[in-house]
Amino acid sequence: MQKEPIYLKAITLRDMSDLSGIKEDARKHTILIIRVTPLAHKDIDNLRKVIEDLYSYVKSSGGDIARLGEERVVITPPNVKIWKGAYDLK
Amino acid sequence: MQKEPIYLKAITLRDMSDLSGIKEDARKHTILIIRVTPLAHKDIDNLRKVIEDLYSYVKSSGGDIARLGEERVVITPPNVKIWKGAYDLK
Repeated sequence: MQKEPIYLKAITLRDMSDLSGIKEDARKHTILIIRVTPLAHKDIDNLRKVIEDLYSYVKSSGGDIARLGEERVVITPPNVKIWKGAYDLK
Repeated sequence: MQKEPIYLKAITLRDMSDLSGIKEDARKHTILIIRVTPLAHKDIDNLRKVIEDLYSYVKSSGGDIARLGEERVVITPPNVKIWKGAYDLK
């Protein structure tokens, strides 16, 4: 059941400190398209930690997460499913 | 009012002929993240036509459309709003 609009937000992950804001948005059921390249270029280990953290967070809350090419990650709330049929990884 | 899940689909626009499938998905209220670079590299004029066509189509059906960096365009159905507050164009 849903009356209010869902929001889709495109954001950039520059730092580990951006993680809490991302989780806050995910908790509010915002669809997030996160550009991860700035952190990837700065600290690939931290990016890996952030992705693992987000993956656990999203899966435990019934949402969905997928890579979008080299640059971005998509996170969706429980009522939005990422279509994996011919999911375009490029 | 919404009970069924919304789908989010990442696809690639390679040709003008992909346009009808994209409109069909948009009509079914699928959120689309379209990678446009293959057509951009092949025929920039045709890409412009496709984008204009999609823009009119989406706006007339109450949806939303926005550029996502250089490579992608996002299309949403009427119940999903693209957050433009600090919309990340990079």
